Amino acid sequence: MRKAYKDLTKNELLTVKAALEEEYKTMEAKGLKLNMARGKPGLSQLALSMPMLDVINSSSDMNTVLGNDTRNYGDLDGIGECRRLMANMMSVKKDNVVVCGNSSLNIMYDTVSRSMTKGVNGSTPWCKLDKVKFLCPVPGYDRHFKITEYFGIEMINIPMNSDGPDMDLVEQYVNNDPAVKGIWCVPKYSNPTGISYSDEVIKRFANLKPAAEDFRIYWDNAYCIHHLYDDIQDEILNILEECEKAGNPNMVYIFASTSKISFPGSGVSAIASSLENIDFIESQMTIQTIGHDKINQLRHSRFFKNIDGLKEHMKLHADLLRPKFEAVLNTLEEELSGLEIGSWVKPRGGYFISFDTLPGCAASVVAKCKALGVVLTGAGATYPYGKDPEDKNIRIAPSFPTPEEMLEASKVFVLCVKLASVEKLLAEMA
Amino acid sequence: MRKAYKDLTKNELLTVKAALEEEYKTMEAKGLKLNMARGKPGLSQLALSMPMLDVINSSSDMNTVLGNDTRNYGDLDGIGECRRLMANMMSVKKDNVVVCGNSSLNIMYDTVSRSMTKGVNGSTPWCKLDKVKFLCPVPGYDRHFKITEYFGIEMINIPMNSDGPDMDLVEQYVNNDPAVKGIWCVPKYSNPTGISYSDEVIKRFANLKPAAEDFRIYWDNAYCIHHLYDDIQDEILNILEECEKAGNPNMVYIFASTSKISFPGSGVSAIASSLENIDFIESQMTIQTIGHDKINQLRHSRFFKNIDGLKEHMKLHADLLRPKFEAVLNTLEEELSGLEIGSWVKPRGGYFISFDTLPGCAASVVAKCKALGVVLTGAGATYPYGKDPEDKNIRIAPSFPTPEEMLEASKVFVLCVKLASVEKLLAEMA
Repeated sequence: MRKAYKDLTKNELLTVKAALEEEYKTMEAKGLKLNMARGKPGLSQLALSMPMLDVINSSSDMNTVLGNDTRNYGDLDGIGECRRLMANMMSVKKDNVVVCGNSSLNIMYDTVSRSMTKGVNGSTPWCKLDKVKFLCPVPGYDRHFKITEYFGIEMINIPMNSDGPDMDLVEQYVNNDPAVKGIWCVPKYSNPTGISYSDEVIKRFANLKPAAEDFRIYWDNAYCIHHLYDDIQDEILNILEECEKAGNPNMVYIFASTSKISFPGSGVSAIASSLENIDFIESQMTIQTIGHDKINQLRHSRFFKNIDGLKEHMKLHADLLRPKFEAVLNTLEEELSGLEIGSWVKPRGGYFISFDTLPGCAASVVAKCKALGVVLTGAGATYPYGKDPEDKNIRIAPSFPTPEEMLEASKVFVLCVKLASVEKLLAEMA
Repeated sequence: MRKAYKDLTKNELLTVKAALEEEYKTMEAKGLKLNMARGKPGLSQLALSMPMLDVINSSSDMNTVLGNDTRNYGDLDGIGECRRLMANMMSVKKDNVVVCGNSSLNIMYDTVSRSMTKGVNGSTPWCKLDKVKFLCPVPGYDRHFKITEYFGIEMINIPMNSDGPDMDLVEQYVNNDPAVKGIWCVPKYSNPTGISYSDEVIKRFANLKPAAEDFRIYWDNAYCIHHLYDDIQDEILNILEECEKAGNPNMVYIFASTSKISFPGSGVSAIASSLENIDFIESQMTIQTIGHDKINQLRHSRFFKNIDGLKEHMKLHADLLRPKFEAVLNTLEEELSGLEIGSWVKPRGGYFISFDTLPGCAASVVAKCKALGVVLTGAGATYPYGKDPEDKNIRIAPSFPTPEEMLEASKVFVLCVKLASVEKLLAEMA
């Protein structure tokens, strides 16, 4: 059994530090150049979808099942077969889905932007209000927070537990403060913590009694079929159904895309919600565009065929991602267990491993890694305004490097965690 | 020489009317079903771009010239080769272009939407102002007007002359009223009148002295290479250069797309402007999306190769469109010349023929055509709020039907123009 760093004497810590600094120099000499900053699929994953590019060619029938020509204008809400595919992926009915362009982030941005200028289903436009607030479970997805920050929406940190956001706090804010208009959620294989919301948490979400009529849950189900394992898979309750049951049918917008199924940037995205919400969304969308890329929708529909095709494809992704996740997790376990200088959750899906250092060490770890050629997501990025109040959360994105590179990067990472921790403990003794 | 309807006696008009009504019944019996409502490319045009779908396949090199993988995240402003292609099409430098998604309408909407919430390069957000106004040359493009109407922007009609908008009026508004923030323009083969702006008009645009610092010209160069003829082609001055020369480098946004070059809905679109404007646009775009569909950008770049490839392709489109335009124009000429019941311009490019009936007859003509199975763009659609003050403009879109169908539809159209005119003249006599 290793001794925890906090139980070492000053001299012991200095000895550890000297050894770590030696190791650091050795690493420095390697001149590594690795990137674990963003949830980018790796090259082998991109290769999985290459056959999709043959599915539509110059001799293809370009008509939808209903006979609409995908090459021309029309089908604002998406072609039927792609709406069905996305609906099945999102566990909702086809009529509740609008298939959009290449990015669910874009739909989320547009949804907030529309609320700013036109309100929500006829409510006062948010730009006319003195104060608009969003709840932000933390750590969370930086690009969510950037959207609300961009529009000057005040963000309130909500701690994440192992079964989802702290619902006592969520209820307290949502049910009492009419300025609270939304909450950002990644309910399954959460970005970055990897946890999935429990049934109880989701039921409590559905049973919120918002003080604001225009409060909505922004349910970014980005990793809905993004399991890492065949045998242990998280499943979450259907939020749209739960909201209906609870008498809150309009309270949720669900977002998803194939960015991490087919190609990032060249996938299809979708929003699902109540018919009343969808009507309001489409009243804006029909002003914004004549329609999205239907040929790409057809390409996706014909390649994946149906939800089973999607699931089979995701198994191939999982086979490629698992070794990378395990390279990190095994290294963390082997090198850090017992030292009490960091904690992490082993995710069963998604794209990230969330790591908590000792308070006050995250920025130092990220900087040290960078100096050794390993780029991590910036410290603080997983918090609104980029400010991690305890400076402890680091998001590790293992998807892009190869498993070998990932192993190398993980070794750099644990070294930097150790060094930053020792430095911190020594500083506290000084 | 035919006698003009206005010079006919009541009895002569009644005789004409009876004959027209006979003809109407014959047409009715045919049970036609034709659509001249929207500027949709015809099937033969769509077929021209089918080989594009083979250009990118599973064995393609997916990297850009600069070595970026188009399948993954990145290249927010578009891949280099596609920026170059669109820049050459738009007659601007590559650095002044951002290639976006599938629709220039979407860029225009986003540009107005961003101005509502964030202002223009740091100006007061329009949603914080009591009044925002746009100038709308009329007749114009209905979807432009829908955007400004949607955001509650007051629209002011500006008459179109044969060389562009009435610039005396434009100058009067723009140079004196700080609430005037923009003007919608289709400077080449204008929608719907088909005219192109003269050098003098464009120079006067560039030399505006706007009362509002956040005034911009919304220059929708939708038909920049959409000529109908090889020998007579309109060329217009470069507005970006002219604005620079005039000391107004930031005054214009230029929009274009390949919707009517490759596939409507599956093309690429772009915005061009000063570097200062582009920086501001990108500061928002980076919040809205991680990037647009780069595989489709690669597909377009490799298929068209360069501006010469684009121009050659447009000649094939012209060969298909010309007979359709001529079917209409010849029918108008043969059937209506001398009757003094309508006027039109013979366009040298673009997608429309604009027809002016006698005042008060447009809605009647559209209704009559519809009753005979020929759908036209709704009367009034070419004016803000759908209100044509004189009820006389009709936009004819000849692209979608076959030339034979177009001939048939044109015959219906002239019949209905005649009948509506006779009815009007008789009503005035009553």
